[in-house]
Amino acid sequence: MDLPAPGSTERTRVRRLPDKAIDDRAVAYAVLDAAIVGHVALVQHGQPFVLPVAYARRADEVVFHGSTGSRLFRALADAEPVCFSVTILDGLVVARSLFESSMNYRSVMVLGTCRRLQEDDELDALRTISDHLLPGRWTQARQPSPKERAATMTLALSLAECSVKVSDTEPTDDPEDLIDPVYSRAWGGRIPLLTTWGTPIPDRYSADQPLPEELGPWRRP
Amino acid sequence: MDLPAPGSTERTRVRRLPDKAIDDRAVAYAVLDAAIVGHVALVQHGQPFVLPVAYARRADEVVFHGSTGSRLFRALADAEPVCFSVTILDGLVVARSLFESSMNYRSVMVLGTCRRLQEDDELDALRTISDHLLPGRWTQARQPSPKERAATMTLALSLAECSVKVSDTEPTDDPEDLIDPVYSRAWGGRIPLLTTWGTPIPDRYSADQPLPEELGPWRRP
Repeated sequence: MDLPAPGSTERTRVRRLPDKAIDDRAVAYAVLDAAIVGHVALVQHGQPFVLPVAYARRADEVVFHGSTGSRLFRALADAEPVCFSVTILDGLVVARSLFESSMNYRSVMVLGTCRRLQEDDELDALRTISDHLLPGRWTQARQPSPKERAATMTLALSLAECSVKVSDTEPTDDPEDLIDPVYSRAWGGRIPLLTTWGTPIPDRYSADQPLPEELGPWRRP
Repeated sequence: MDLPAPGSTERTRVRRLPDKAIDDRAVAYAVLDAAIVGHVALVQHGQPFVLPVAYARRADEVVFHGSTGSRLFRALADAEPVCFSVTILDGLVVARSLFESSMNYRSVMVLGTCRRLQEDDELDALRTISDHLLPGRWTQARQPSPKERAATMTLALSLAECSVKVSDTEPTDDPEDLIDPVYSRAWGGRIPLLTTWGTPIPDRYSADQPLPEELGPWRRP
């Protein structure tokens, strides 16, 4: 069970739909732009660890930040192999058999090593993350001070080795189940999972303040 | 940077709230019971890989299943060290400074090795997963045939080494920002992220069929 060499795209090739290779990058970008939390895995003495991180896509990379005081985050900056994964669950697929029941989802997997960002490049990445999470907020809120910047580690991971998988289907039942006297009467279809932003809840200092325009109508796709 | 030996709970201890250790297990169970997709990481030739999986908690373990044809899934069954991670994003915390802006979330991390389930133990785990995703469906749908069972690999991971982190806060702004003539006027508070099930969409075979009772009123917490 040999793996292809790092840097090859072989490790992340989606074997089921190789003819979709050209479109995959645009789809991967769309998935990455639709989520805000990813899971990054690294290895420490043979043990994998997974960290959830807020992230954003910046051109052909993902950027995310953490505390310089975090042991695992410092390890991420050491150019060790990492895996970055984003999964959006879109719903359940309910078939007449449990075996054919599944989920609709969009997921991206990235392999590579992280690069620590510095100076203006880091500031640009932090702004990209802020814009991704809360468009318009960067210019409304106080931007990071030198002391806060020193406590922050910002990493970038290239999307060079990247795969995307999208499942968006109805149930595909066994023909026998569809004519079975019992199971053909079982309901089949999809149950969508919806993620929406609720009404913003002001803290005590903003209780009497109208909601700023950039927060009000804003809803992520 | 030595890690404690496997089997120790030291590797997953939440350092910030050690006095909460007793309560942590109940909280971890509640978080695991509220989500349906986790991310499991494993190492192959030094490279970490992350797989999204549907899972359920069964007593003091999580169980999940995959295809016996999946290379990474077969590797999971080889008792290699894994990390299982569940993250529920509950919302954004909007502070007057970007540095203090953050997220509210619930997350669980489990370290250990997977155990492959067999026979009745596997069937019980599959039913537990089905009940977790879609309560009541197990007895409505066709249960797995021997051929389908042979194509399915079901794994269990003990929660013995498990940590949980919960963030559920208002912004904690710097006092200077709250009296700053500019930034004190920036809105602060929380923006909840809501996850709900949409109206089930029948496929063509169930188009004229009323929605079964177990799907209709059912909403996950």
